[in-house]
Amino acid sequence: MAKKSPLAPARFPAIPAVKGVRIGAARCGLRYRGRDDLMLAELASGTTVAGVFTTSSMASAPVEWCRAALKGGRVRAIVVNSGNANAFTGAPGVASVGRTVAAAAKLFGCPRKQVFVASTGVIGEFLEDKKITAALPKLRAKGLSAEGWKAAAGAIRTTDTFSKGAVRTADIAGTSVTIAGIAKGSGMISPDMATSLSFVFTDARIPAPVLQAALRRANDKSFNCISADSDTSTSDTVLLSATGKGARHELVARLGDAHFKDFRRQLDEVMADLAQQTVRDGEGASKFVTIDVTGAADNGAARRIGFTIVNSPLVKTAIAGEDANWGRIVMAVGKSGERVEQNRLKISIGGVDITDAGRVRPDYDEAPVAAHLKGKEIGIAVDVGANGGKGRGRARVWGCDLTHDYIDINASYRS
Amino acid sequence: MAKKSPLAPARFPAIPAVKGVRIGAARCGLRYRGRDDLMLAELASGTTVAGVFTTSSMASAPVEWCRAALKGGRVRAIVVNSGNANAFTGAPGVASVGRTVAAAAKLFGCPRKQVFVASTGVIGEFLEDKKITAALPKLRAKGLSAEGWKAAAGAIRTTDTFSKGAVRTADIAGTSVTIAGIAKGSGMISPDMATSLSFVFTDARIPAPVLQAALRRANDKSFNCISADSDTSTSDTVLLSATGKGARHELVARLGDAHFKDFRRQLDEVMADLAQQTVRDGEGASKFVTIDVTGAADNGAARRIGFTIVNSPLVKTAIAGEDANWGRIVMAVGKSGERVEQNRLKISIGGVDITDAGRVRPDYDEAPVAAHLKGKEIGIAVDVGANGGKGRGRARVWGCDLTHDYIDINASYRS
Repeated sequence: MAKKSPLAPARFPAIPAVKGVRIGAARCGLRYRGRDDLMLAELASGTTVAGVFTTSSMASAPVEWCRAALKGGRVRAIVVNSGNANAFTGAPGVASVGRTVAAAAKLFGCPRKQVFVASTGVIGEFLEDKKITAALPKLRAKGLSAEGWKAAAGAIRTTDTFSKGAVRTADIAGTSVTIAGIAKGSGMISPDMATSLSFVFTDARIPAPVLQAALRRANDKSFNCISADSDTSTSDTVLLSATGKGARHELVARLGDAHFKDFRRQLDEVMADLAQQTVRDGEGASKFVTIDVTGAADNGAARRIGFTIVNSPLVKTAIAGEDANWGRIVMAVGKSGERVEQNRLKISIGGVDITDAGRVRPDYDEAPVAAHLKGKEIGIAVDVGANGGKGRGRARVWGCDLTHDYIDINASYRS
Repeated sequence: MAKKSPLAPARFPAIPAVKGVRIGAARCGLRYRGRDDLMLAELASGTTVAGVFTTSSMASAPVEWCRAALKGGRVRAIVVNSGNANAFTGAPGVASVGRTVAAAAKLFGCPRKQVFVASTGVIGEFLEDKKITAALPKLRAKGLSAEGWKAAAGAIRTTDTFSKGAVRTADIAGTSVTIAGIAKGSGMISPDMATSLSFVFTDARIPAPVLQAALRRANDKSFNCISADSDTSTSDTVLLSATGKGARHELVARLGDAHFKDFRRQLDEVMADLAQQTVRDGEGASKFVTIDVTGAADNGAARRIGFTIVNSPLVKTAIAGEDANWGRIVMAVGKSGERVEQNRLKISIGGVDITDAGRVRPDYDEAPVAAHLKGKEIGIAVDVGANGGKGRGRARVWGCDLTHDYIDINASYRS
């Protein structure tokens, strides 16, 4: 296994029990040897569920199953394997999902549509679902607990160099609830073993439609704001389950309820934490990059500009090389296709203003920028001055640099 | 200077005189030491001109000048420097272009708008145009000749590892004319020292509007079909000059003239040749990749799918690693956002069919694909089966792999 990312947090967080959630892991031997590769979560009866999935038109069989099952709005079990994505596997792949779902539904005595599945690993190889269904009964009987977070986060890893977890406490009208999640993904978004998966749980009681709306918005501010290498997985999946088994709290009826505000804020934080950890484990990443874009025509334009910068191979290699090559940021903004004004473009790195009036500032001093680039946390701010400087669109995106290790990992990955 | 690309042609082609064109190079010492960095072309009076330029909203001062000058449709001189892009240089950059143009116009006794300029090199540094204007008189007096092609192609290089030239003979209603060109660019499209520049010349007599239409179409089949690293320069420029000083031929009045057909075909070939050489000099490239996309909703969709594949870092690193990882091609097609049908997707590499019915073919044999990937010329064909398999959109794009050398070149480029 590759050495731990230099951008990893010091440790996996201490995640308490989330009432109504039992979780655990096992080895079913799909691809890896000597490590867990199967995760199972059991949710209390009545648990509501929300989900967001990859936009790829080559979505995997598990993703298509989850999309359909989500219409029921309830979840009793989540089954996740690593080592094989069950993607681009045609009718046999669909049948494989069917058998896994049937086995779990039987085990938990629930309708099939309350079983959610996710798979991450190599594309195009048939999934030996027998290994999964054979391992499930014992895992359910002996492997689940209220404290299985770290084991679960470990089992869903592929090329990840560390396990990812996050937890926050939220207040709903004076009652405290917990939001906890795990994630995997190293390179947001690569198709083989770096799909982004995230499973978040709360003991709050929230109707499925409200949960879905909250998740979609939180996702737009977290997993939709990260990019490690600009590639998009066939399998990206985020599921949010609400058991309603925590302390009783005031009813949440609508997304806009005032007493739901803190929950949403904490959900945003859990998701942003997990998304940022995913970037910190970007394949070969040695620097974590935060890009703030302001002055765009709208927020969507700002996000696209941010991604154009953070995905530019020339910007990424300059950051890897600790080179204050701000001209490459100019280039990236220019190729974005969004409304921008060259003479109003303001670029700063590490808080140092670099450009003004369509050129470098006369007082620009590269020394503090060069010093900033030697660190692991890089901040770039760009105001694009759209609409005569009246543009109000803004966005923050996160990414990482492009290093030799990325090529080492990906040029020899399957072998 | 980096070692020559392994994908370089054996030698610079033998380019004959193109009547009405005198070309040459000199050292003006902008950035490089011990090599030419200034190119000058003198065109006969009455030469028509066409041009296409970067789509970047951060276009350089020379590009903006050329765009405006092009309205006149005539060219007497083309002045090109390497080492400094004069991009994102604000009002001083515009003034610098003005002084260079004025000096050349005086030298050739022509209107300013018949002088075209291009600059390639570092972004954001002020161009010492004095060095250019000081060198021009001597270069004009003693440095120009009908045979200066190779010297000119050398002077416009930045990180290019070889000089790029191409020539074809065309027939206009029984009369033979010549089309010759030079280009630079290593990494299509990177902003600093890998801008794509191309200067093509013919001794045919062609009205400026027809020349412009022919160039735009040829460009769509050449420089608009290549990508080395997905980044777009602030300075990309292609100029096509027609002196009308060759053998007299039948009048060309319209793009659709039957007797203009062979010229257009040969122009396409010269441009495709130059564009492909540019990719073959992609920074760090070790393999030349041709992607054929068929079955798309339209030709534009096919081209976008082709670029999504050829720009995918995971596809590029797999090719560098000689790994028959076709799942990454599935991923890239899926993320393109274009209409595609998973169950009709057909992928072949090196002529070997890999997928069918939404999965790998039962008879797929990886051995010949692995052997193909060990070569330097990689062919990938993808039929995306849009519109129930009735899609007729097709495109061919060219690219290269992503290697350690790309990172070495770009992580330490400015220093």
